[in-house]
Amino acid sequence: MSESALFPASRLTDAAARARAAGLDALLLTPGADLRYITGYDAKQLERLTCLAIPADGEPILVVPRLELAAAEASPAAGLGLELIAWEETEDPYALIAGRLGPVSAVGLADQMWALMVLRLRDALPGARQVLASAALRELRMRKNPAEVGALREAGAAIDRVHARVPGWLKAGRTEREIGTLIAEAILAEGHVQVDFVIVGSGPNAASPHHEVSDRVLRPGDAVVVDIGGMMPSGYRSDCTRTYAIGEPPADFLAYYRVLQDAQDAACAAVRPGLPAEAVDAAARQPITRAGYGGLHPPHRARHRPGVARGSVHRGGQHRAARPRHGVLDRAGHLPGTERGPDRGHRGVHRGRLRAAEPCAPRPRGRRGVERA
Amino acid sequence: MSESALFPASRLTDAAARARAAGLDALLLTPGADLRYITGYDAKQLERLTCLAIPADGEPILVVPRLELAAAEASPAAGLGLELIAWEETEDPYALIAGRLGPVSAVGLADQMWALMVLRLRDALPGARQVLASAALRELRMRKNPAEVGALREAGAAIDRVHARVPGWLKAGRTEREIGTLIAEAILAEGHVQVDFVIVGSGPNAASPHHEVSDRVLRPGDAVVVDIGGMMPSGYRSDCTRTYAIGEPPADFLAYYRVLQDAQDAACAAVRPGLPAEAVDAAARQPITRAGYGGLHPPHRARHRPGVARGSVHRGGQHRAARPRHGVLDRAGHLPGTERGPDRGHRGVHRGRLRAAEPCAPRPRGRRGVERA
Repeated sequence: MSESALFPASRLTDAAARARAAGLDALLLTPGADLRYITGYDAKQLERLTCLAIPADGEPILVVPRLELAAAEASPAAGLGLELIAWEETEDPYALIAGRLGPVSAVGLADQMWALMVLRLRDALPGARQVLASAALRELRMRKNPAEVGALREAGAAIDRVHARVPGWLKAGRTEREIGTLIAEAILAEGHVQVDFVIVGSGPNAASPHHEVSDRVLRPGDAVVVDIGGMMPSGYRSDCTRTYAIGEPPADFLAYYRVLQDAQDAACAAVRPGLPAEAVDAAARQPITRAGYGGLHPPHRARHRPGVARGSVHRGGQHRAARPRHGVLDRAGHLPGTERGPDRGHRGVHRGRLRAAEPCAPRPRGRRGVERA
Repeated sequence: MSESALFPASRLTDAAARARAAGLDALLLTPGADLRYITGYDAKQLERLTCLAIPADGEPILVVPRLELAAAEASPAAGLGLELIAWEETEDPYALIAGRLGPVSAVGLADQMWALMVLRLRDALPGARQVLASAALRELRMRKNPAEVGALREAGAAIDRVHARVPGWLKAGRTEREIGTLIAEAILAEGHVQVDFVIVGSGPNAASPHHEVSDRVLRPGDAVVVDIGGMMPSGYRSDCTRTYAIGEPPADFLAYYRVLQDAQDAACAAVRPGLPAEAVDAAARQPITRAGYGGLHPPHRARHRPGVARGSVHRGGQHRAARPRHGVLDRAGHLPGTERGPDRGHRGVHRGRLRAAEPCAPRPRGRRGVERA
């Protein structure tokens, strides 16, 4: 797919319109998912400021350290008709941005902007209330265009190819770390440009959701959670968990796994445009609660936001299922977070959003996960 | 080396003392170099808050999402006698921290804390002035203990082993990308646990200091800048640039390279405890200016802070020099930044600090780099 379809110039005007609607005078985006989403520029996070400033009214500018100018000019950002300003080592890029923006009373900052920049911008724009840019950009990023859906499908297919090779590596006597190294190599070999994470959690380690790898040796009867992902050349990312068993799984494993499959099925059956995300979560929760696992930690949640942010495409399947049923990327809607909590779960499901169904309930012996996006 | 030598429990009390001296009521450290430096915990940066709160007076706490508790407990942080508090999905960890700190008027935030957390902490601690934690921690982190020097030596030796293999891969007809893949694999194979960056800049690409790799095919006569680094199991990092030539280098290449070697020699000869960093920079700058390259971009600078932050160990050498002269890690002092500019270059060189000498001057045809740490 072309860069102009993935990163259309209209994003700049769309973002400015969102800023205006959110009551912000400008968005200030340092390297990260928002900057890449709007310009295609995969900029490095450095101490030296790189910042896309999008005024609600006015022309956007991309401010880059002179050292990064060649990289910025080689990126899709150079094709957007955007003014590129390189600052020199002895200049103050914060003052430069403040000067270009003029008086502002509220600005939206990239959610992952470093404190280093947040505080410098606070001082350079003393009258401006600082809020998160995601307040303005969230709705824009949620709805994927066909090129993005294509990029996510490519990412999903790439990580599927890695998982297809995993059973051949899961042998008793090998360590999680050895298997993790093979998986990392395969993530690159199957089309990603970057390994985001490799989790190989065997036996008791399967109970730590963000375990990575250890020197634990795999044993017959182990359940092994393999949760892996990477970034494609498009900037879109994969993320797929599957649960495997070494030889014969524990006696109650398959019955328990069935509960999670039921939860996934229930979530996929429930999801439709207009539904509050909580309702999908509740549907997935029922089979888990019914089976008596509802009160354990970490709690089940049906969430994940596919896209350019890390860990954003969720797919899933079962051990040795060559093509698990996860092909519902298209118009099923997206759950930005469905935990019951003070500020979650009230967002609805809409056409054009994507969502991932990841029922997960832990047991003392280990987490089991099934994902489907 | 042992974890207790690399991450001694005294760092917590040292950090509290530094906070006090800087007039701060507490340091608030989210995942990143400061957190790892103080606790050894290589925590993930996630939307869910992980935060080490170190009051100037009082007991430090490590607040982690319940999902990350197992990882925190498995880290060196668990051995520091530190209270570990896991927060549940429905709790507000910012309110939790605010409650534990009590009234505060100034807090130091990790430099790389995400805006997401900066603004939540601003709202949870409305009376507190936010400044950067580095103001308090910089002096502490600059001076390395023997275990850290050992860890940096190990990182340097590991990246030397990678560079020793590079000449075998630099062949006309290969692309930068192909060579970059081989280097990335070697970075892991030679003892790193993570690839931080791989820059293979050939011909004109050598002029972009943060170029990564491209599909450019190497040609006879190309100069190739290979700038690579990764993270060791200790958390300490390597970073080494060397410049290679494919076959016979351009006619003026060796003479020009000699200028950079002279600059490096001049910096290494000048550096001594008590000297302002600017003076070392000026020493390195002289041979470059004398040769007529002083006015070009990017400017030369003799800097880099070896340690746990990315890109922090700089080493250097010449093409085919098996053991370049860069073994001055010990007590040569460290330059935190020697650019001439509004807020740089006034810091002195002290015993126990490390510094990297990286004279670098670009030419229209390509950057040349020589590093020595």
